[in-house]
Amino acid sequence: MDREQFRAAAHAAIDDNRRVLPTIEPGYLRPQIPDSPPLEPQAWSEIQADIESKIQPGLTHWQSPNFMAFFPASVTYPSILGEMYSAAFTAPAFNWICSPACTELETVVMDWVGKALGLPECFQSTSANRGGGVIQGTASESVATMLIAARERRARELTLADGVKDGSAEYEDRICAHRVKLVALSSDQAHSSIAKAALVAGTRFRSVPAKLEDNLEMTGESLRAVLTQIEERDGLVPFFITFTMGTTSSCAVDRFAELKAVLNEKESWRRIWVHIDAAYAGAALVADEYQHFAQHFAEGVDSFNMNMHNCLFVRNRVDLTDALDITPIYLRNPYSEQGTVIDYRNWQISLGRRFRSLKIWFVMRSYGLNGMKAHIRKGIALGDLFVDKIRSRPDLFEIVTKPAFGLTVLRVRSSPSTTAVTNGTNGEKGGSKHAIAQVDEKANELTKQVYELINSRGEVYLTSSVIAGIYVIRVVSGSALADESHLLRAFDILVSTTEEILHT
Amino acid sequence: MDREQFRAAAHAAIDDNRRVLPTIEPGYLRPQIPDSPPLEPQAWSEIQADIESKIQPGLTHWQSPNFMAFFPASVTYPSILGEMYSAAFTAPAFNWICSPACTELETVVMDWVGKALGLPECFQSTSANRGGGVIQGTASESVATMLIAARERRARELTLADGVKDGSAEYEDRICAHRVKLVALSSDQAHSSIAKAALVAGTRFRSVPAKLEDNLEMTGESLRAVLTQIEERDGLVPFFITFTMGTTSSCAVDRFAELKAVLNEKESWRRIWVHIDAAYAGAALVADEYQHFAQHFAEGVDSFNMNMHNCLFVRNRVDLTDALDITPIYLRNPYSEQGTVIDYRNWQISLGRRFRSLKIWFVMRSYGLNGMKAHIRKGIALGDLFVDKIRSRPDLFEIVTKPAFGLTVLRVRSSPSTTAVTNGTNGEKGGSKHAIAQVDEKANELTKQVYELINSRGEVYLTSSVIAGIYVIRVVSGSALADESHLLRAFDILVSTTEEILHT
Repeated sequence: MDREQFRAAAHAAIDDNRRVLPTIEPGYLRPQIPDSPPLEPQAWSEIQADIESKIQPGLTHWQSPNFMAFFPASVTYPSILGEMYSAAFTAPAFNWICSPACTELETVVMDWVGKALGLPECFQSTSANRGGGVIQGTASESVATMLIAARERRARELTLADGVKDGSAEYEDRICAHRVKLVALSSDQAHSSIAKAALVAGTRFRSVPAKLEDNLEMTGESLRAVLTQIEERDGLVPFFITFTMGTTSSCAVDRFAELKAVLNEKESWRRIWVHIDAAYAGAALVADEYQHFAQHFAEGVDSFNMNMHNCLFVRNRVDLTDALDITPIYLRNPYSEQGTVIDYRNWQISLGRRFRSLKIWFVMRSYGLNGMKAHIRKGIALGDLFVDKIRSRPDLFEIVTKPAFGLTVLRVRSSPSTTAVTNGTNGEKGGSKHAIAQVDEKANELTKQVYELINSRGEVYLTSSVIAGIYVIRVVSGSALADESHLLRAFDILVSTTEEILHT
Repeated sequence: MDREQFRAAAHAAIDDNRRVLPTIEPGYLRPQIPDSPPLEPQAWSEIQADIESKIQPGLTHWQSPNFMAFFPASVTYPSILGEMYSAAFTAPAFNWICSPACTELETVVMDWVGKALGLPECFQSTSANRGGGVIQGTASESVATMLIAARERRARELTLADGVKDGSAEYEDRICAHRVKLVALSSDQAHSSIAKAALVAGTRFRSVPAKLEDNLEMTGESLRAVLTQIEERDGLVPFFITFTMGTTSSCAVDRFAELKAVLNEKESWRRIWVHIDAAYAGAALVADEYQHFAQHFAEGVDSFNMNMHNCLFVRNRVDLTDALDITPIYLRNPYSEQGTVIDYRNWQISLGRRFRSLKIWFVMRSYGLNGMKAHIRKGIALGDLFVDKIRSRPDLFEIVTKPAFGLTVLRVRSSPSTTAVTNGTNGEKGGSKHAIAQVDEKANELTKQVYELINSRGEVYLTSSVIAGIYVIRVVSGSALADESHLLRAFDILVSTTEEILHT
């Protein structure tokens, strides 16, 4: 593979002249591939030809500027180089000696990320509270790992409070008896990975209702009601809660200050592990104008994750290692025993790990902090442009939640509005009063038809959701390759498709 | 990055003229790297220079032919290309439509792997029992995922047997009450990831003792004793067991046939989920002479994992999706709803996934089945050569467990033996009678000294372990780049270091 081939392969994935969605049907691939692996080696040229003829036609183009679905998953040249080096340097670095550079670069680079995001000092590896960052395999793993650490911390606290000593005959029974009472929480707008993490950890899960009139932000009042019910009505023990910065459906930001104030009302609530899920919107923290959010994490927050390479930060690494350290004899070595090095395997579910700090190091150096800020601001500005276009057609569209972090959530109106919509954008421009969208079955049906017709044509790719009974279309502007023309084209497609549906 | 640079980077990692272990001390890297990320972009040449001057000196060279520690983690050119394409095609393919090629190639390629390993038909995606393979992030995740699926299957069975219906008010309480009684099992020689998986899932864990006189293989008799104790003495419910094909310390293979016969003795034992952990030795199944092991998996085995790209196979995918399917509205789409496609997110803990089937596809095609068989046979033959050399010096060394799959487990003698050692190699050459090694504190101390001196010099990298109170050195021969000269050199180092220690 030479430079031109590498460039061609990389460009193929980011070529904006093609449909963002493939045209194939389920099962397209199997008939094109032999049933069994070949006996003899095949030439790379033969494999390369199959990538082009069989694989590429079945790709959804996440790097396309017309990909406005879910949230962006950006790839950059430096990040591809990071994967290459990580593969070439292959080392399942489950302890320091298995590849010292892998461990040590991760510690340094996680501190870089913490600083870049304006996270409080308590999340630096050098903090007095033994905080620090770690790269997890996925955001789901981050949440599951935190939930497990929280489960063990709380079950141990309760068991010790019973007067049962670690190592005694009844310790395991008592730990199990407490685990069974534990309840994890999040807003009903939180990502599905929170409920899945509770399922993984084998704990109960309850969601806190978020209301459209609160812009789907979790409020202190709702949290207090659910916590009280769990403790007083159900006799259970809340032990873990996720606050979300940028929910999946609408990029809502939970009300950190009032939520933390509620948790401070009772001793048992102060023992709850607070995790911040900033999977998508956390990246915006690199821009100074968003760093005020991070100030809330200086007190009363145990952990924080965001999706840039699945960075997870914890306030106290001992909470993790107490829960997850199982060190068999074949993994022992003098460096680990002396505690002079970090063994990240005890910060995660898995034993082995890749050398992914290289990717972050390459990306942060290749773009510089200013380049990263510019990328974030560009995406959000394109979102603002798109919102303005949507607002220019109140006869067709309604904005359902405050636009935030480049995400616009809208629906098709069942009848033209006569009032201009005035809702602001989340956090930054303040939430000026606006009409709360009401459930409207006719609008739901129209919006669904418009959404499905647009995606079936595949020129742009959008996502739908249902929030508070309202069927909505989500449009995300953060693609690295998108410019005004792509957002304007998406708007034109929305208008023309809506008019087409309305007139059929 | 051009071709020559790519080759240089890849070669750097596999250069056998260097020490396998780095010479740096903990904390070597931080002083060489700025405290904060740069504000402005940096040129690639600057980053490249830092890789060479700061990162490479801190690498442990897993690809070195002198790396004989742990188990090999091989990287190949096709697998690096697989990582590059996976990165260029970035798509967190959490459902079919998010990248159809990613899902469909995985299904086809997992069937290839199943056939290559001689796994029974029940693990093919096309099987009537709805089996199939999936690529997991790590082997630890494979085991944790199976344990969670098993936990939910058993807790549900017991709850339904109580007459409590799914969806009823007491269903969750009853599920929790049953979960708390569940006990996962494995041999005490099984990998630490099994106990960690139980910790992740929040279940109890018990190990079944394996004895040196049984070559550290788990036997039916030991299993029966532990199961009986769990049920009758402790009133608990065994629900999951891992049988190991190739234990970490000594590559022992648990006695599948007699273990399965014991599980068949009681109805409650027949309900136990049986998982085969073939993380390292599973790769040997590509060679015809080892495929007889896989015949045991046709009946009475629920799942199987091996480390080549973390392949996991299950007999019944519904066990997985019943436990792990949480599908929020923003992930719904017609293809998934109709069940015409596989959504692998429901086969794993995480939501997002990489396009790693490309790696397996590239590797299997580039080497062909015959190339893969040749690789396995070469590694095992080198192990046999090494064993013969060790046996030629009964004055210095003792083989502690049957050599297997290229792994030799030995110790230094505290006094010269007068009898030749006659133990065979595991499985293949039959276990002829041999003297069972006895605990010997002097030998333990000598062996430890030899081991530590060899590793401190860093020319070869070995692992130690302690089995049945005996301190041992493990030597693994499977490096793709190793040939006879490397094994002979390792033997010479062992001899000279031992003589050095004995004469000081």
